[in-house]
Amino acid sequence: MSAIMKNSAKLRDEERARLIWLLTTDKAITSVLLGKLTLAEQYDESTLIDDLAEVSALVAHLPGPDLADVLEALPSDERHALWNVVEDDKRGKVLLEASENVWDDLIDDMSDRALLDALQTLDIDEQIYLVQHLPRDLTGRLLATLPPSERARVRQVMNYAHDRVGSIMEFEVITVRPEVTLATVQRYLRRLGKMPENTDKLFVTRRDMTLVGELELTTILLSPAQSTVEAVMESEPVAFHPEEESEKVARTFERDNLVSAAVIDQQGKLMGRLTIDEIVDVVYEETDSDLRRMGGLSAEEDVFAPVTKAVKTRWAWLAINLCTAFIASRVIDGFEHTISQLVALASLMPIVAGIGGNTGNQTITMIVRALALQQIQPGNFSFLILREMGVALINGLVWGGIMGCVTWLLYSDPHLGAVMTLAMVLNLLVAALMGVLIPMIMVKFGRDPAVGSSVMITAITDTGGFFIFLGLATIFLL
Amino acid sequence: MSAIMKNSAKLRDEERARLIWLLTTDKAITSVLLGKLTLAEQYDESTLIDDLAEVSALVAHLPGPDLADVLEALPSDERHALWNVVEDDKRGKVLLEASENVWDDLIDDMSDRALLDALQTLDIDEQIYLVQHLPRDLTGRLLATLPPSERARVRQVMNYAHDRVGSIMEFEVITVRPEVTLATVQRYLRRLGKMPENTDKLFVTRRDMTLVGELELTTILLSPAQSTVEAVMESEPVAFHPEEESEKVARTFERDNLVSAAVIDQQGKLMGRLTIDEIVDVVYEETDSDLRRMGGLSAEEDVFAPVTKAVKTRWAWLAINLCTAFIASRVIDGFEHTISQLVALASLMPIVAGIGGNTGNQTITMIVRALALQQIQPGNFSFLILREMGVALINGLVWGGIMGCVTWLLYSDPHLGAVMTLAMVLNLLVAALMGVLIPMIMVKFGRDPAVGSSVMITAITDTGGFFIFLGLATIFLL
Repeated sequence: MSAIMKNSAKLRDEERARLIWLLTTDKAITSVLLGKLTLAEQYDESTLIDDLAEVSALVAHLPGPDLADVLEALPSDERHALWNVVEDDKRGKVLLEASENVWDDLIDDMSDRALLDALQTLDIDEQIYLVQHLPRDLTGRLLATLPPSERARVRQVMNYAHDRVGSIMEFEVITVRPEVTLATVQRYLRRLGKMPENTDKLFVTRRDMTLVGELELTTILLSPAQSTVEAVMESEPVAFHPEEESEKVARTFERDNLVSAAVIDQQGKLMGRLTIDEIVDVVYEETDSDLRRMGGLSAEEDVFAPVTKAVKTRWAWLAINLCTAFIASRVIDGFEHTISQLVALASLMPIVAGIGGNTGNQTITMIVRALALQQIQPGNFSFLILREMGVALINGLVWGGIMGCVTWLLYSDPHLGAVMTLAMVLNLLVAALMGVLIPMIMVKFGRDPAVGSSVMITAITDTGGFFIFLGLATIFLL
Repeated sequence: MSAIMKNSAKLRDEERARLIWLLTTDKAITSVLLGKLTLAEQYDESTLIDDLAEVSALVAHLPGPDLADVLEALPSDERHALWNVVEDDKRGKVLLEASENVWDDLIDDMSDRALLDALQTLDIDEQIYLVQHLPRDLTGRLLATLPPSERARVRQVMNYAHDRVGSIMEFEVITVRPEVTLATVQRYLRRLGKMPENTDKLFVTRRDMTLVGELELTTILLSPAQSTVEAVMESEPVAFHPEEESEKVARTFERDNLVSAAVIDQQGKLMGRLTIDEIVDVVYEETDSDLRRMGGLSAEEDVFAPVTKAVKTRWAWLAINLCTAFIASRVIDGFEHTISQLVALASLMPIVAGIGGNTGNQTITMIVRALALQQIQPGNFSFLILREMGVALINGLVWGGIMGCVTWLLYSDPHLGAVMTLAMVLNLLVAALMGVLIPMIMVKFGRDPAVGSSVMITAITDTGGFFIFLGLATIFLL
């Protein structure tokens, strides 16, 4: 029991929190670890020695992936301080699980030699992954350390874009021939002595590497030892091509409850495999980046990046937003005469614009999600538009009606109330229509529908709302 | 090769799209399948017969999870039509992978008997899952069909909330004793004849079910047959408790690359196990619901729900939004005198409010995400506030400065330009501060930070922006 608790995920949650707390609350720890301060210069030396010992103990006890998470949660100085305490033989694993932001931050200070040393503790698939993604190009130097057969593989995988299956596939696979018996397979496995992580199946190939089936480990364990592989294998395995999109493949993994799957080339020859741990990373990354993009954040910014970097990564969206707000402002300016005659319009117009923005964003969120789930097809597109317009019409009549009455009561002007209602209905219809069309058009042109949709719809509903409301007011009230 | 292509994920993608297309473009298919129309009444009978045959063939060929995805992508009528064609023995699997929206829609028409029949094709863990989540309470009737030993289990699992490990754990586990040899284990497995899906390890327990270790299938295959389980097992397995939150456990699965893990009670006794396929579902659901909540959508609405349902699920957010817009409108109304003296203010004020909303939403998106990743700890909180305020100050000075100059040029009024700059700086600071504080305070009070944060920040930056800008204008320009 105590053995189990020692490795409990909950305990590790607490240890990670404790490590973050120690490093962020006591600046002296960071200073000492970065060599900016010696212990002797410290006033409260004994506490500091205790704290430093605890930091070391925690770092020694926590596995690489946990340390990667801690690094994500630290400002830059504290990150470097912690990195100095991480043992050399753990650094590879930590880098493997860390994000781009941590790499950017830490790797500047490391020599090429130190970085290659960290890589050497990893297996070949992990090395390839890091070399592809690290901000510094070490490919040449890493290649030089590899045997020629592996060098060819590395070059091959580096040709695939980072959102394709090819860039996350693993080369370490165990293959067996269809004609051998399970007893032979088991002898072969014992001789190998180890299997790659997340091996739930072996791949059955002909001599020329053509994939003919899959042999699950459970099948080996459950079937009679004298059966041939051919007789018990799955002969219609799900296989992927290296050019397929990782995000789509992730949906298939989810749908079919896969743990691993073969990657084959156009001739049906086995190239490598995909495993669920890479797929889970893809899922987290996909949804994470959707969330950030919809919020107008770039993929590169992390919550602990320094101020200057945050300013740099956010300025583009701000500038776009400012431009669209400026356009809306010019529309209002065009109705200066109307407003000067009826100042109440100035206080009512943000309601029309705001409610349109809200509805438009609801619609867009739903469409972007449905697109990601491949739920929208040419056949159901018109249904979707009509449905959103229907929802907008009902909401417009109900809420626009209420708002119209409130306006009438507030300003004792039934005409102003009617203009309010009509403007809200029209702007909600615009919002619904554009909320469906904008992401669909972006997909049509091969763009990511999550990027900027929200900014665009807000621009349209703001400008449109002001124009509709002030325009109707000019026609009917002056 | 052809065998592989037959089961390729790509082909199934195409088949799903084709099925959706057939059902949504030819209304006659749906009418015939729903029994509203007989074939003889149809003008273009022969095409229809072909189409119906194709629909049947596609339904017969596609696996349950794929059909579930197709159902998600159909309006209600077409859903029912398709459901009528799904064979009885596949219906359980389809329901298992479908979402709440599909259940709501389809199950109304099914008799309890038909529903129980569909459940009978599933294994006990799947039955429990569905009975817990289906909109209709069939627990009593399902329990009556179960042997008494399983009845107790079902009652136990139903006590856990749906976001806890207990509600997604599976009971079907294979356990072995620590003292037996691997040869015995393998004989035992052959006698069992099958293993639950996603079995990558067996659980090692004492006679009283206390978990003492895990035995990976790869270990059985790689180690000498005469070794005892105890000698080769992992004696510090990661185990979870049924009360733990599924979303947190999912992070641990990702961090540790787990395929399955034990669930134990407070005494360390094995209760069941968690598998990666449930975890992948948790991840998709978590991120999906974050995205929807931030966008002001309820979790229940799907993209093909009928108009009335969509109106019902969205009205609350619209009402809240309308209230906040109304408050902002009252703030403006308070400055009616100022605006009537200087109408330019009416066209400039949306810029101040809009840019604040944009910045506030960027900040909130980042904080919500960091909270989900457990990156924010008491220690780094003040760093975070200062960082966001710093970013806001720089952006305010730069963009506010530019906007101030533009205003000066447009209206030939340097004082108006200065008020514009100052208002933008102040509103951006408010946005940054509240963007950090709102989600943190919601977490403090045990609320989900994603729900409504975006609406709140927009309310504050709108009202705040109008108040700051018009207030400054009243002080300095009149």
